Amino acid sequence: MKKEDIAIAFKKLQEDICYALQEEDGNGQFISDIWQRPEGGGGDTRVMQNGNTLEKAGVNFSAVHGPVSKKMNDAFGLDADEFYATGVSIVIHPYNPFVPIVHMNIRYFELPGKTWWFGGGIDLTPIYIDEKEAKFFHGQLKNTCDVFDKNHYPEFKKWADDYFFIPHRNETRGIGGIFFDRLMGKDKKELFDFVCAVGRTFAPTYCHIVRDKKNTTYDKSHKKWQGIRRSRYVEFNLLYDKGTKFGLDTDGRTESILMSMPPLAEWHYNYTPAIGSEEEKTLQFLKKGKAWV
Amino acid sequence: MKKEDIAIAFKKLQEDICYALQEEDGNGQFISDIWQRPEGGGGDTRVMQNGNTLEKAGVNFSAVHGPVSKKMNDAFGLDADEFYATGVSIVIHPYNPFVPIVHMNIRYFELPGKTWWFGGGIDLTPIYIDEKEAKFFHGQLKNTCDVFDKNHYPEFKKWADDYFFIPHRNETRGIGGIFFDRLMGKDKKELFDFVCAVGRTFAPTYCHIVRDKKNTTYDKSHKKWQGIRRSRYVEFNLLYDKGTKFGLDTDGRTESILMSMPPLAEWHYNYTPAIGSEEEKTLQFLKKGKAWV
Repeated sequence: MKKEDIAIAFKKLQEDICYALQEEDGNGQFISDIWQRPEGGGGDTRVMQNGNTLEKAGVNFSAVHGPVSKKMNDAFGLDADEFYATGVSIVIHPYNPFVPIVHMNIRYFELPGKTWWFGGGIDLTPIYIDEKEAKFFHGQLKNTCDVFDKNHYPEFKKWADDYFFIPHRNETRGIGGIFFDRLMGKDKKELFDFVCAVGRTFAPTYCHIVRDKKNTTYDKSHKKWQGIRRSRYVEFNLLYDKGTKFGLDTDGRTESILMSMPPLAEWHYNYTPAIGSEEEKTLQFLKKGKAWV
Repeated sequence: MKKEDIAIAFKKLQEDICYALQEEDGNGQFISDIWQRPEGGGGDTRVMQNGNTLEKAGVNFSAVHGPVSKKMNDAFGLDADEFYATGVSIVIHPYNPFVPIVHMNIRYFELPGKTWWFGGGIDLTPIYIDEKEAKFFHGQLKNTCDVFDKNHYPEFKKWADDYFFIPHRNETRGIGGIFFDRLMGKDKKELFDFVCAVGRTFAPTYCHIVRDKKNTTYDKSHKKWQGIRRSRYVEFNLLYDKGTKFGLDTDGRTESILMSMPPLAEWHYNYTPAIGSEEEKTLQFLKKGKAWV
């Protein structure tokens, strides 16, 4: 598996996902910003704003390379002169508070002549947690994982629980999903097939959830809660997310990295949902270690 | 100067500032949350939400102490067993996009038996930069500084330019002001008098600006630009602000630390103001090294 072939497959996946999301939305169009990185490589950032259902959807592809700065080596515990990285990264913020925020990423990283690895994952951030939906989502991920290795789902599900955690809120970001990094050492083609399968699981799974929820009626109180949950998403991404940090530390393209930010977010001082409310029920679910399947 | 006397003076300053802001707003009331820190000390977080003019205003006082964790020593380059910290910290987000966001902080830090220092500053983040207002604001700060040391204003103005900078946007957060840290070694009483003078400069200066702008008419386009500028404020505070990091790293009270977050913020992909617009003029001003006085 040459890195160029991995990048070609990832680019194709980006196209397929944009097509599927556009079909599902029925109105919004992705615009494409093709950009180059002065130190090497570039990307294609596709963003839909103001779709029917999808308020802000970013589907990034990038394949970048170049020298490794000291800051980058220190931050990521590397000792390398050069790197190559390609990946697809998605964050979607829908209008309707009953349609969850979603994130997907698959990535390949290489320190030429030294080592390589794959990473990625999918996780869901419902504004209102629906147990049936959560089971469906985790079930889809488990099905994909099980084709490759029965240990993948439990291991990567726990990894997502630990990764998508907001310590200062003592909350998980959402209901998790799967997360994995530095997969290496085994057959490279098999790992490649696995991350591609994760990538292909994304569109049908999320579109199913969108179709199921996009016509749910909502009011101002639901939008307020969505604004608050989105603010927690912002806090996680800016304070803890390694991809965001990596992007900003390597002088990545700011608008491509921060396409993950919600179109609108709200911070209310010391907001506490009423006991027994749907909002409070959702908060109760935002804990590590919940077995959904 | 005993640390207890410094804390008493800071608490009094908090009271005076809340009173002045409430008088200026005419409608909003500060609510007070008195909290204790399990490891030692506590604070009084005062927040006004939905005032006439002030949409969200936080005026924090705290005086905390306790053991220094390894994480804290590492993060702040210290080598201490115990610390004491007291301060007043303010962030105000007004409704009207023509009234600037403001931040003020004064603080005293002590490693008992080892060392102590003062820090602080005031800086202004206009949504639309008004040169006359910027000159007034910097003039007020210079006047206060000059009473103590003619070198203070130029030195602390540069410090603010460097500190309130958002590298991934290549923008300053606003028009700066003054910032200083680790002031020590000279007469302690004089440094205390200086930070108190900075604290007392805050209310009359900001209230003057509020009065001047609060009745300016605005429309949706101004509110959108306010939402975007507020998102940059969020990015700075979560990615770069040392006070936020210190607070979260020392398991501070999350709601008191993040009272600085705006009530609403907006992220639009790749937003670029029209050439010659007021928004673009403001962006042009967001550079280091602008001499306002």
